[in-house]
Amino acid sequence: MTKNTKVNAAILIIGNEILSGRTQDTNTSTLATWLNSIGVKVNEVRVIPDVEKTIVDTLNVLRKENNYVFTTGGIGPTHDDITAESVAKTFGLKYEIHKEAFKILESYYQSGEFNQGRQRMAWMPENAALILNPTSGAPGFSVENVFCLPGVPSIMKSMLGGLTNKIVGGEPILSHTLNFKTVESEIAKSLKQVQNQNQDVEIGSYPFFHAGKLGVSIVLRSEDQSKIDNCSSQILEFIKEKKIEIVDR
Amino acid sequence: MTKNTKVNAAILIIGNEILSGRTQDTNTSTLATWLNSIGVKVNEVRVIPDVEKTIVDTLNVLRKENNYVFTTGGIGPTHDDITAESVAKTFGLKYEIHKEAFKILESYYQSGEFNQGRQRMAWMPENAALILNPTSGAPGFSVENVFCLPGVPSIMKSMLGGLTNKIVGGEPILSHTLNFKTVESEIAKSLKQVQNQNQDVEIGSYPFFHAGKLGVSIVLRSEDQSKIDNCSSQILEFIKEKKIEIVDR
Repeated sequence: MTKNTKVNAAILIIGNEILSGRTQDTNTSTLATWLNSIGVKVNEVRVIPDVEKTIVDTLNVLRKENNYVFTTGGIGPTHDDITAESVAKTFGLKYEIHKEAFKILESYYQSGEFNQGRQRMAWMPENAALILNPTSGAPGFSVENVFCLPGVPSIMKSMLGGLTNKIVGGEPILSHTLNFKTVESEIAKSLKQVQNQNQDVEIGSYPFFHAGKLGVSIVLRSEDQSKIDNCSSQILEFIKEKKIEIVDR
Repeated sequence: MTKNTKVNAAILIIGNEILSGRTQDTNTSTLATWLNSIGVKVNEVRVIPDVEKTIVDTLNVLRKENNYVFTTGGIGPTHDDITAESVAKTFGLKYEIHKEAFKILESYYQSGEFNQGRQRMAWMPENAALILNPTSGAPGFSVENVFCLPGVPSIMKSMLGGLTNKIVGGEPILSHTLNFKTVESEIAKSLKQVQNQNQDVEIGSYPFFHAGKLGVSIVLRSEDQSKIDNCSSQILEFIKEKKIEIVDR
């Protein structure tokens, strides 16, 4: 398959527990790091509640604007797990028992333990493609360009390996970080000049306070290593002129 | 002022560093916890890149759909800090030096240190209201119902205290958490029955694996303590029948 140079994705975090502040989302960072590593740029992240209409409406926007959409949360056995049914409605598909998922779950649990609650995790949009779960049995699924993963971070993360072949990324997005013992305002003007001369490199500036050290991280991102290298040289040039110290973080 | 019973907000995290996975967002959790505590329900969170058109378009949606919008990120001194200018465009306002902000910054820095980069932090939409910054000088600002805060978590957090009087919340959203040594599928059916009988209480079910303990947290949320108590009793009733152990987390 030919690689597109630009492939993008949206991440949709489904769960009241994130919106209430009770739970700190970490899935965004895990998914974004993985997607970037396979050449998929994350355009947008949204966090929405466990409300069917909101899920359907949001998916209908995101799936058209992005090459891929990844959802986390709402595919467990309880009443507040409504992602699968909402995805079925999004695509106008039946919501039914997925035979393969049923078999996987049936063999995962010991005899007598595959109760009604657990059987609910086999209900999916018709003809959904399964995303296997090496950690806890219950599979995720995908319909067209929408990939549905669980909300528990360790389980979610364990399922990404099996997905890599299904996602066709573009050129990997490369990055290089430079750390300086300075404050942003000291380098802002010079950095802007470098950005103006290097439009194809995304230059981010992030102050840090870490383990007693104070400084600024400059992150250069591009699909082209030579452009990053060129940009990096220009930055190091003015850093040297200004007698600013380069540091580790 | 009369309190509305329902007041809602959106959180808008502005920053390429979250979308690349480089930085783990923690501002959502801080803001959501604070907003819930003052009776403001978070409807939605979005994370978007440092792109002017995206910021303007997203703000124009969120500010109309929510009582309040809180942004974090993009108000520092470097070229990638474009939130203030984007907010000015959103509201069709001039982007200019804010006299009060300029004075605050001028007196914060020592003589000779208030350079061009730092002066950039005094540029804001005309007539913006300032949000004072007890940690590092540079103020945030608000225009109508949009409140702009910095991205550095410790600084952002330190500025919330000064905002509390500007935000008029509804009834505080109360919550109660019950932790059980069980798995979700064991209680899913009974829990659904309780949810059906208690439509005004939001019941969330969250499996946990923590410090060697495995269980399920049930979170009850409502503006009415008596409804939470009633719902809690019904849950504890079936938990007792099923001989499930109540645990601490």
